[in-house]
Amino acid sequence: MRGIKLCTMASQVVSSLNFVSIFTHHIVVTRQELKKMEDLKPSAANSSPLTPLGFLERAATVYGDCTSIVYGNSAVYTWRETNLRCLRVASALSSIGIRRSDVVSVLSANTPEMYELQFAVPMCGAILNNLNTRLDAQTVSVLLRHCESKLLFVDVFYSDLAVEAIATLLNPPILVLIADEEEEEEGGAVVTERSKFCYLYSDLVKRGNPDFKWIRPESEWDPIVVNYTSGTTSSPKGVVHCHRGIFVMALDSLTDWAVPKNPVYLWTLPIFHANGWTYPWGIAAVGGTNVCVRKLHAPLIYRLIRDHGVTHMCGAPIVLQILSASQASDQPLKNPVKFLTAGSAPAATVLLRAESLGFFVSHGYGLTETAGVIISCAWNPNWNRLPASDQARLKSRQGVRTVGFSEIDVVDRESGRSVERDGATFGEIALRGSSIMLGYLKDPIGTQKSFKNGWFFTGDVGVIHGDGYLEIKDRSKDVIISGGENVSSVEVEAVLYTNPAVNEAAVVARPDEFWGETPCAFVSLKPGLTRKPTDKEIIEYCKKKMPRYMVPKTVSFLEELPKTSTGKITKLLLKEIAKKM
Amino acid sequence: MRGIKLCTMASQVVSSLNFVSIFTHHIVVTRQELKKMEDLKPSAANSSPLTPLGFLERAATVYGDCTSIVYGNSAVYTWRETNLRCLRVASALSSIGIRRSDVVSVLSANTPEMYELQFAVPMCGAILNNLNTRLDAQTVSVLLRHCESKLLFVDVFYSDLAVEAIATLLNPPILVLIADEEEEEEGGAVVTERSKFCYLYSDLVKRGNPDFKWIRPESEWDPIVVNYTSGTTSSPKGVVHCHRGIFVMALDSLTDWAVPKNPVYLWTLPIFHANGWTYPWGIAAVGGTNVCVRKLHAPLIYRLIRDHGVTHMCGAPIVLQILSASQASDQPLKNPVKFLTAGSAPAATVLLRAESLGFFVSHGYGLTETAGVIISCAWNPNWNRLPASDQARLKSRQGVRTVGFSEIDVVDRESGRSVERDGATFGEIALRGSSIMLGYLKDPIGTQKSFKNGWFFTGDVGVIHGDGYLEIKDRSKDVIISGGENVSSVEVEAVLYTNPAVNEAAVVARPDEFWGETPCAFVSLKPGLTRKPTDKEIIEYCKKKMPRYMVPKTVSFLEELPKTSTGKITKLLLKEIAKKM
Repeated sequence: MRGIKLCTMASQVVSSLNFVSIFTHHIVVTRQELKKMEDLKPSAANSSPLTPLGFLERAATVYGDCTSIVYGNSAVYTWRETNLRCLRVASALSSIGIRRSDVVSVLSANTPEMYELQFAVPMCGAILNNLNTRLDAQTVSVLLRHCESKLLFVDVFYSDLAVEAIATLLNPPILVLIADEEEEEEGGAVVTERSKFCYLYSDLVKRGNPDFKWIRPESEWDPIVVNYTSGTTSSPKGVVHCHRGIFVMALDSLTDWAVPKNPVYLWTLPIFHANGWTYPWGIAAVGGTNVCVRKLHAPLIYRLIRDHGVTHMCGAPIVLQILSASQASDQPLKNPVKFLTAGSAPAATVLLRAESLGFFVSHGYGLTETAGVIISCAWNPNWNRLPASDQARLKSRQGVRTVGFSEIDVVDRESGRSVERDGATFGEIALRGSSIMLGYLKDPIGTQKSFKNGWFFTGDVGVIHGDGYLEIKDRSKDVIISGGENVSSVEVEAVLYTNPAVNEAAVVARPDEFWGETPCAFVSLKPGLTRKPTDKEIIEYCKKKMPRYMVPKTVSFLEELPKTSTGKITKLLLKEIAKKM
Repeated sequence: MRGIKLCTMASQVVSSLNFVSIFTHHIVVTRQELKKMEDLKPSAANSSPLTPLGFLERAATVYGDCTSIVYGNSAVYTWRETNLRCLRVASALSSIGIRRSDVVSVLSANTPEMYELQFAVPMCGAILNNLNTRLDAQTVSVLLRHCESKLLFVDVFYSDLAVEAIATLLNPPILVLIADEEEEEEGGAVVTERSKFCYLYSDLVKRGNPDFKWIRPESEWDPIVVNYTSGTTSSPKGVVHCHRGIFVMALDSLTDWAVPKNPVYLWTLPIFHANGWTYPWGIAAVGGTNVCVRKLHAPLIYRLIRDHGVTHMCGAPIVLQILSASQASDQPLKNPVKFLTAGSAPAATVLLRAESLGFFVSHGYGLTETAGVIISCAWNPNWNRLPASDQARLKSRQGVRTVGFSEIDVVDRESGRSVERDGATFGEIALRGSSIMLGYLKDPIGTQKSFKNGWFFTGDVGVIHGDGYLEIKDRSKDVIISGGENVSSVEVEAVLYTNPAVNEAAVVARPDEFWGETPCAFVSLKPGLTRKPTDKEIIEYCKKKMPRYMVPKTVSFLEELPKTSTGKITKLLLKEIAKKM
């Protein structure tokens, strides 16, 4: 402080312990006058609803002559064309009678039409419902009824599934068929019940009005999508997100992953998985190229990366594993590809192999309920100096909240207090931020249960390390992640309990080199059975009652299942057994 | 459509003109049941207020050991330190008695403290008021009184200005002195009236509590900053922005400029200019390094670019011009530097020279009322194939709305309708989006005037080209941009009219190689004067009444000023005259 002396009063203050109160009298005098600041209220000019839908018309203006979508040999569109095609489909939906807040469902692989529908459906004011193509007909039927879907777009490859699903519905949705000339040339898809389909997608595009004014939400809190996380039992969980949440998540995801302008994005993540983590909208925002692909076939993926200069991909760790294991990957990639993975943490060996091939892997965490990745392993550039194995360990942690998200915490279930930041104390992961769902559709109790004290409780168990990074320790006691699909063990158990021979059932994850995990069932049988079922018979029983990916790969019989003092089955012990199998 | 036939009904529909109504009956049946979607309302978990303040604590977690701020030889902080310093200052402000929605002002160059205060002031719940350091004492006084500022942080270089400004105030703000050891070593700053300063900034940092819980806004619509656009006349325009607007603008700006993680950002744009277009918050969001600098001295700027590996800079076109013209720029930059400019369009020669030196220039448009750049000349990669002169012409246009902004339009003042997209029809630029101000402080009439039919009217005149890109033709009839400063010609005229010899006065922009523009006054004198003033006397008169940058550089006397049929002075004609001077 050379050359500057403070006034006497001030030097007293700064050298005084009475720092807090001494100047208070200075301040209070004129406070009342300031009320005029509060006269300033939101107006129509600054409170127009936040929505991701406007990204598309902007892309058409800025990148009108740039490639928006690549698919096989035939479908290559520009952003101008994609905008017009979406407007045409939205207008056709309006013409058919779809109105604001109707639900429109889609059952499709990652085709150009699937991409377009992420915009076109909400652009007519409707709520988009993407369905998992791996579901069985009965589940699809339950979900369509639950959300009262008015119209179902069906990829030609899932036409039989759709027809079977709507067979028993009293108010079935209108079926629209999405043909696939690309694949049909290879003789891939057969539509057995053509008569059930009332429209062809390509005809909606032809007949739709490209001058249609897309319908903005009345409020940014209006629903834009409903995504199901489960549904084989009687209580499907339909996660509803609003325009505001998706807008913030889409911009936040671009910032968090530092996506530049004009990326080339390969669709290895199913769009039906939480709307592809909001990247359908995000890629429009940055004028990227979407490379659509139907199958996770490693040689095909490597060919697409090479042919189109792919820069970005997302997917479950199993995608990385498939790519790392493939013979097509003998040579490193010409240009590095950024790969964002979430769900379970990628195994260190897979991570190291993938990075040696030229994938730069980022790792995050999100739920259908958060619309996308809201915790990510933000990389400290100083970590680049650490050995590869240390880097892999750091990268396997889920990380910190993204910039656009408000708060994350790990709390003790009993006390509700934040756990110690010691990397050891378990707690439940709680979240707060704009991209948290509005709630579960028609499930006020389920919604209420997941919201407590202004937080959303994930049901996932984690720890916080000393540096503030979060790591999930037990994704949750009832979730198995098999090939990137969430399997609720509770749902599988519910089916097992319907078998007349089963006394007790518990399903846990069993580590699997290929799938990451597979469901493993432990069963005790009822006493006094004249004939005991075999494990194969139990598996066959399950196959009839649930989607294939949920079916236990292993069934073990125990005299009695291990229980806690309060009588609850101890899954931790069963997991240990399953690990050693 | 190989292999697929539609059902009879559907083929009728798609081949029928009656496309619109045929399926409507299908849909209406179950609409009532769907009301349950509307039961889903925002909750505390997803409606926590959007605010940019959380970016800082996240940067401290993720980039704790990375450099946050570089300044001269001494001030180098990490993000962990910057977070703690801001918490300490926020806590000290609370201790002094600053409360939620009090206004705290700052008069400072781009020092580390200036950067910190963009966080620290709102982190104690107060509203931040950055003051233009080029203002005169009288104007500063008017503004402090207008916003009822409770406390004023003063950069040692502006201590005399601050002391003079508060001399006449009945409720003067508490003065806090920001010393600058770096500059003082060179004997730069002298504080003549030390006794007026009650605190030293460095002592607030020392005494403040690093465990202070920063104060979140109660609503995302709560004010966070008030920035003055003018104020020499009796009606200062204090632009008030809310937390939500700044949050969206900060993320939007990062996306629009595609700012990657860990940029090195050189502060050539004054932070007091609309909070440095929200980049103080944005650079924290991406964990960048802030290179602070006090003077726009070209050799110094080039040295900083070289020494610190600068990647990003913002500034008015005059900054580009200074850098292009400097002898220090004989050699192209080692690594390209991204330069974002706004305000007036950079001249094609300056643009070409700057790009040949290694600056990659982006161009945008914003107002204090929009918090940052909300129209930018988004680059179509196909334009890279055009000749450099064509590229310069395209780049000189202001562009399209940013991704996070809702809508822009150019409308006819009379009819209120959008103008033709012909690149020729003039209209007023109207805006709608989250980063539009809440309004002008204590100016309900001014606020009401600028908001019409759900739009904010800029007062700027532009055209829209056939490709949808906007270009400003007349920045507005009363604004002159001199060295990056907005000069309201109306305000200068108001002062001229106070001269007893002046009959009529009109001030317009005169093109100037160095300043871009300078104010040029046309004056007619009152009849029957015993002694007519000279142009130098008029200029001297102005110097006493307004900040130096507003003073007309040229004064021309006319018998009578040219007028329209309705009696309004025609400035277009005067501009033509000024151009030819």
